[in-house]
Amino acid sequence: MSRTPLHPTREQIELPMVLDCLSDPIRLAIVYQLAQQERVSSELRCGDFSGLGAKSNLAYHFAKLRECGLTQTRIVGTSRMTRLRREDLDARFPGLLDAVINSAARDADRLQLVPECDVAGVD
Amino acid sequence: MSRTPLHPTREQIELPMVLDCLSDPIRLAIVYQLAQQERVSSELRCGDFSGLGAKSNLAYHFAKLRECGLTQTRIVGTSRMTRLRREDLDARFPGLLDAVINSAARDADRLQLVPECDVAGVD
Repeated sequence: MSRTPLHPTREQIELPMVLDCLSDPIRLAIVYQLAQQERVSSELRCGDFSGLGAKSNLAYHFAKLRECGLTQTRIVGTSRMTRLRREDLDARFPGLLDAVINSAARDADRLQLVPECDVAGVD
Repeated sequence: MSRTPLHPTREQIELPMVLDCLSDPIRLAIVYQLAQQERVSSELRCGDFSGLGAKSNLAYHFAKLRECGLTQTRIVGTSRMTRLRREDLDARFPGLLDAVINSAARDADRLQLVPECDVAGVD
């Protein structure tokens, strides 16, 4: 059984909120990792991002990402599975997500992005 | 005679700071107007943006735009002439500025962007 917390609809996604959300280096790193893993697994669980900070801190950032419309989260048992809302974002703001991710990739060292995360635990 | 306040170098421009700066609706509107007028006049003065708010408030936003590397400002007499640092931004983050401006254009009504500003006073 899975539950789904509240998400904005596609039309409710606002550009200033998306940019503000992405301006935090940890949230930028989460979005970058989700994008890096998209072809392997569209969803990751919070635990896959443990390299980015403490669990409680990450929970806050995941909530911010969900509330601004950047990610979709569903709760499966005790896990929260998160994926990028690429289709919605590309529809609302064509090219923006890719431009941000590519810009982040160029500054990966400077932003201390984790280039790969452990997805072995995703089932 | 013109003076130039402090600006970050191209290499000092940081993605999180640029995104944070653009997440403010008034600064987004300023950047949008600068982009709209680029072909007519690469520089605008603060007075050209009076429709966006009080002078003291705009001065704050122009300083934030300059400090994060989005704009270049030079002081000519009592005027501050501002332009987008398009070349630097496109070099650091290819496609990002255009993606943000195009996204803003799509939501122009929602964001209450001023589609045109008075550049008659620019000399």
